[in-house]
Amino acid sequence: MRNILVIGSGKSSSYLVKYLLEKSETEDLFITIGDIDTKNAQKLISNHSRAKAIPLDVFDNVSRQNAIQEADIIVSMLPARFHIEVAKDCLAFGKSMVTASYVSPEMEALDNDVKSKGLVFMNEIGVDPGIDHMSAMKVIDDIRRKGGKIILFESFTGGLIAPESDDNLWHYKFTWNPRNVVVAGQGGAAKFLQEGTYKYIPYHRLFRRTEFLDVDGFGRFEVYANRDSLKYQKTYGLENVKTMYRGTMRRVGFSRAWQAFVMLGMTDDSYTIDDSENMSYRDFVNAFLPYSPTDSVELKFRYQLKIDQDDMVWDKFEELDIFSAKKMVGLKKATPAQILQKILMDKWTLDPTDKDMIVMYHKFGYELDGQKHQIDATMVSLGEDETYTAMAKTVGLPVAIATLAILNGKITVPGVQIPINSEVYEPILAELETFGIKFTEKKVPYLGYNPLNL
Amino acid sequence: MRNILVIGSGKSSSYLVKYLLEKSETEDLFITIGDIDTKNAQKLISNHSRAKAIPLDVFDNVSRQNAIQEADIIVSMLPARFHIEVAKDCLAFGKSMVTASYVSPEMEALDNDVKSKGLVFMNEIGVDPGIDHMSAMKVIDDIRRKGGKIILFESFTGGLIAPESDDNLWHYKFTWNPRNVVVAGQGGAAKFLQEGTYKYIPYHRLFRRTEFLDVDGFGRFEVYANRDSLKYQKTYGLENVKTMYRGTMRRVGFSRAWQAFVMLGMTDDSYTIDDSENMSYRDFVNAFLPYSPTDSVELKFRYQLKIDQDDMVWDKFEELDIFSAKKMVGLKKATPAQILQKILMDKWTLDPTDKDMIVMYHKFGYELDGQKHQIDATMVSLGEDETYTAMAKTVGLPVAIATLAILNGKITVPGVQIPINSEVYEPILAELETFGIKFTEKKVPYLGYNPLNL
Repeated sequence: MRNILVIGSGKSSSYLVKYLLEKSETEDLFITIGDIDTKNAQKLISNHSRAKAIPLDVFDNVSRQNAIQEADIIVSMLPARFHIEVAKDCLAFGKSMVTASYVSPEMEALDNDVKSKGLVFMNEIGVDPGIDHMSAMKVIDDIRRKGGKIILFESFTGGLIAPESDDNLWHYKFTWNPRNVVVAGQGGAAKFLQEGTYKYIPYHRLFRRTEFLDVDGFGRFEVYANRDSLKYQKTYGLENVKTMYRGTMRRVGFSRAWQAFVMLGMTDDSYTIDDSENMSYRDFVNAFLPYSPTDSVELKFRYQLKIDQDDMVWDKFEELDIFSAKKMVGLKKATPAQILQKILMDKWTLDPTDKDMIVMYHKFGYELDGQKHQIDATMVSLGEDETYTAMAKTVGLPVAIATLAILNGKITVPGVQIPINSEVYEPILAELETFGIKFTEKKVPYLGYNPLNL
Repeated sequence: MRNILVIGSGKSSSYLVKYLLEKSETEDLFITIGDIDTKNAQKLISNHSRAKAIPLDVFDNVSRQNAIQEADIIVSMLPARFHIEVAKDCLAFGKSMVTASYVSPEMEALDNDVKSKGLVFMNEIGVDPGIDHMSAMKVIDDIRRKGGKIILFESFTGGLIAPESDDNLWHYKFTWNPRNVVVAGQGGAAKFLQEGTYKYIPYHRLFRRTEFLDVDGFGRFEVYANRDSLKYQKTYGLENVKTMYRGTMRRVGFSRAWQAFVMLGMTDDSYTIDDSENMSYRDFVNAFLPYSPTDSVELKFRYQLKIDQDDMVWDKFEELDIFSAKKMVGLKKATPAQILQKILMDKWTLDPTDKDMIVMYHKFGYELDGQKHQIDATMVSLGEDETYTAMAKTVGLPVAIATLAILNGKITVPGVQIPINSEVYEPILAELETFGIKFTEKKVPYLGYNPLNL
């Protein structure tokens, strides 16, 4: 029997565990799930004979190292900053490992040692990062094989609410860490490449510089730029591309409304508000508006943000009850971002029957035989319920498939890596299709940003 | 003869040195000016028999300590971060010292040792901080002596161009460190107190939340809020004040135009632009605007910032030549803020005959005998020329006067301190008046922000 240790049994682990359990007989696997709290792990494995849940504190060296020594391969589903503890043990005990997280500098630093021990440390093999890498590299490699030269690459992902559960005016609910949504885009200007020129958007303009995207059968979306669109330029071999733009997808109208919170300073996470605990939602909003003994918070809000009386965006703010004098913040010494998150969680938390949705959209522009071409590739994955979400599916399945592929010696190139080689992505993408995670590719006329070649 | 060591002979030292030289006979002083480069120091002392310039590198322990040992009192006019080296030596050799800079935590930490040695380390005794503390405390103490209770304190300072030299559309030239002007307001939300409620303004709204101020004989100004208006609330004993607001003064219209740079991200100092050296001013502006093969940078700028065709603000941008395709940035790997500074320095640098201006405006609201009252105190100081600027005068004179007062045993309370006690500020303010640095106080009706008491 081959032992797989999964560390962490949070929201993203449901499909991962389900997949491994379903393969456990045919593949002769035993799955151990380690977590500080084993409740969710117990639920995920039910009474399966080829699985157990064990208490595991990643900072307790003894129990962590014992568990790792007993396994043949380790999957770390912990928050990204904890992977390094696991990785060092994996290196010491000669075990391969898999994570869905970005490669940290500390992880990258292990590359030589991992290679010399012949191990595979596969990272960024969730959805974003993960499926984005694999699906993009597949098309890029295809184009290159045909002799094409990539001139444009754009890539967008959104973790959203499925159409059937879309019942608020923002067309948004939290399907992953709400905090990341509230502070999204902060920490520096967004940088990208358009027709050979670098472009920069500061945080306070990010949500006003969106563009539209249409996905067949799912209607229109908007995208705002990621911080660093150029992050994988070299990794993907796109040094000579003219346009490179990566972004986050929302339903149309989200960003324009969100901009109000950005402009007033309600997404700021850099300072705390003294008496936040005893503030009403209305007091919180009012803290970002000029004092007036008479003018209403509503009118000051409209005036500062230049929102006309008949602008439909207004209903979005009312829906959130941000002008309520009765609802209390109730958080001690909280940052504006923490308070805003609390207000949003009242309204944007998934109901038990709500379904989420992952949408991905790539554009590939290329030159072939003196002509310019474009391929658009889109993927939509819908969740089943609160536990088996599209997020858990698109994160967990590629992790699970990669884990088994490494265990079965099908991924052989050693090192700290991400899934950009065809040896890795081809079989994973093929198997993902059997789970309905499938890209639709279509040829469209190449436009770029300079269609007349001026 | 008493020896005064002045370390640093930059722009703010002209009046300081002039004052000390003029007093050198009657007060029996010898002035030593230490600087890495003695050229400016030589110019300031000319061939005065009671002064000399010496080369002094503040990081060369031997020469620094020798110079400090030989002096009876030390004035540090270095950039604020270098004072601590001087302060430690002053403590070791038992010398008092004077600076015009904010008290750093490292400086504050010396307080007990300074007190136990009976020394005076006087800081924040320039113009802002300095004259603002002294002039505010004088009125506050006066009101308290009469039994009044302060309910409102607002204080504004501007380093501006004198009306007779005001020849550009921004009504602004750099009269101190240009870099500080370009990045002003960055690093966190501005916080202040209005009628008992805390108010917060994020950086990207700061220049749109200005208020007007009128100064008799000098017309109208606008003010934007300082980062921390509450910094001296406790120091001034204003814990129970309802309104506390501190800000920076500009001529009307500056801030609305400046907001364009803020919004586009041109004041960002947190990242560098790759090929900044070979960019034209036009390329630089264009980096913050969406790509277009045809639309002009001008129209994209107007469109993004919603500047109407007949808006006079447009002339301000044209005056700066920011749309020039010929003028080159010429700075390697520069931040947007560094590039913007360079562009502004083309236009906003003082001519040799230009005169600068310091304006200060305090508002004091108080309750006395059941009535609400208000005193407005204003001060305007004009420069004489490029060397004898209002900035150098208002920074250097209080430093010089305080230095002599300490030397003559007129300031006796030991410790690391700022000039908020009447023993200190009374004689200094009186002497400053003889140099024309004089506050005009007038009683005005108290309005506050809730004039009808609603």
